[in-house]
Amino acid sequence: MKTAVIGLGLIGGSMAMDLRKAGFATRLVGVDKSSAHSARALERGLVDEIADLDDAVAHAELVITAIPVNAIKSVVLKVLDGISESAIVIDTGSTKSQICRAIEHHPKRRQFIAAHPLAGTENSGPDAAFNGLFSQKTNIICEKERSSDVALKIADEIFAALGMRTIFMDPVEHDKHVAYVSHLSHVSAFLLGQTVLDIERDEKNIFNLAGSGFASTVRLAKSSPDMWAPIFEQNAEYLSQALSEYIMHLQKFHYHLMKRDTKELHRIMTSANHIRKVLEGMDGKQKPNQLVENKS
Amino acid sequence: MKTAVIGLGLIGGSMAMDLRKAGFATRLVGVDKSSAHSARALERGLVDEIADLDDAVAHAELVITAIPVNAIKSVVLKVLDGISESAIVIDTGSTKSQICRAIEHHPKRRQFIAAHPLAGTENSGPDAAFNGLFSQKTNIICEKERSSDVALKIADEIFAALGMRTIFMDPVEHDKHVAYVSHLSHVSAFLLGQTVLDIERDEKNIFNLAGSGFASTVRLAKSSPDMWAPIFEQNAEYLSQALSEYIMHLQKFHYHLMKRDTKELHRIMTSANHIRKVLEGMDGKQKPNQLVENKS
Repeated sequence: MKTAVIGLGLIGGSMAMDLRKAGFATRLVGVDKSSAHSARALERGLVDEIADLDDAVAHAELVITAIPVNAIKSVVLKVLDGISESAIVIDTGSTKSQICRAIEHHPKRRQFIAAHPLAGTENSGPDAAFNGLFSQKTNIICEKERSSDVALKIADEIFAALGMRTIFMDPVEHDKHVAYVSHLSHVSAFLLGQTVLDIERDEKNIFNLAGSGFASTVRLAKSSPDMWAPIFEQNAEYLSQALSEYIMHLQKFHYHLMKRDTKELHRIMTSANHIRKVLEGMDGKQKPNQLVENKS
Repeated sequence: MKTAVIGLGLIGGSMAMDLRKAGFATRLVGVDKSSAHSARALERGLVDEIADLDDAVAHAELVITAIPVNAIKSVVLKVLDGISESAIVIDTGSTKSQICRAIEHHPKRRQFIAAHPLAGTENSGPDAAFNGLFSQKTNIICEKERSSDVALKIADEIFAALGMRTIFMDPVEHDKHVAYVSHLSHVSAFLLGQTVLDIERDEKNIFNLAGSGFASTVRLAKSSPDMWAPIFEQNAEYLSQALSEYIMHLQKFHYHLMKRDTKELHRIMTSANHIRKVLEGMDGKQKPNQLVENKS
């Protein structure tokens, strides 16, 4: 398929690489508002050529949008206006309610797939892209009933080719869910990083902590503010709820710590240990596509 | 050296494996209050035999203690009482002020090394032990001026053989430092795990998040409460301070989030991004043994 990738960062670039490798993208056209990123993507061979959005979209059979969430609405509307009747558009942004609402009544809504591949690293830009980023990860598609069967079938093949399993969710449920399992993790890491930077202001005291528990817990604090500030803004309502609950749990723990109530601290940690099962996908009992479907 | 390892968990077990591999430990005697752990350590070949503490210590040239911090004081005092005049004892616990104070006036203080190898995983017990756990990591030795030159020389050779670089710190400074870079990370992860478990109570909603940013941020929430509750208790003063600062940062972030002050959120994240340099050891500019030396 002739493929246009809009946004040549970690997600767009990695998807371009994987789609070429899988034989899906026969020709790749890249679009990015940064000319430095465009040049670098071309240099790395992520795409075959760079074009303007209008040009790229007009000739594409498949369009992938992988841009900061504050730009999605205007870009996707422009893309839908510009594509042919047979092309499909897959958005990969981290919030889904706003974009779903924005294009609800667009005449080409059925050519659009509202996806969110749950994959990423703390790095960004075309140099961060790599083959296999999506392998073994989960992809979420929202409002599948508003996409055409053809579009869904192609999206299904694409995400399967990337090694992902796809589950379906309502967009509001999606945004609430990722506020907890993704956005809150980032906030927690950013502020853990800031707290340690504050105390370790005296740089003599800082030594190599790579590979430590701290390094793993704080890793997401290296993430791009350009990408995350708009995500937090768009998902402020649910993130605020998640953050309140997190702070409440920390305060309770702090209270028991100050009281030296070690038994209660032990109880809280034992309860939190249950997260091991979550990370292991409930002991591997679950299969793809049998999960949350338009829950709310 | 004839070596006794007291505590056959992740740290003790891994150290036994590495010391044997490096040729340091010619014969390994294990001590553990759990007979299941003792049997398993023997089965895995971590140690050559299991003995009572008194027996193991009486014949050892080197004793490693790797036990929960609430047990260190009584065990180390017993060990020091029992060792020969030429043996050395290395404690590996995660807090250092209490043990240093407890043995300050012991006649064999100079045969003791107050160490803290900064290495670990979220797993525990003899099955968690593996070769290479300590490689490329940092080891901290406290009150080196209270250890004999011979003891320091052997400890130096041991930690170098494990692939660690050693830095020196005052025990109080150590405890304060690890409250921020290690203990706070654990608290942050435990409560992040709990927050997500609370919202995802409906297990239908839980899917495989292995390999995600959440998985990395919450990893330490799988850690053993038996190990961590006593650490938090012993280091409650500094951990409480670190936790207050962390909560304060989260609340500020929450305030700006609710005000939709995206510019300020961006500024905070940009500042936190500086942690990348910390994790990379200040751009690799630092060399071993030239860092914090008895700072306070």
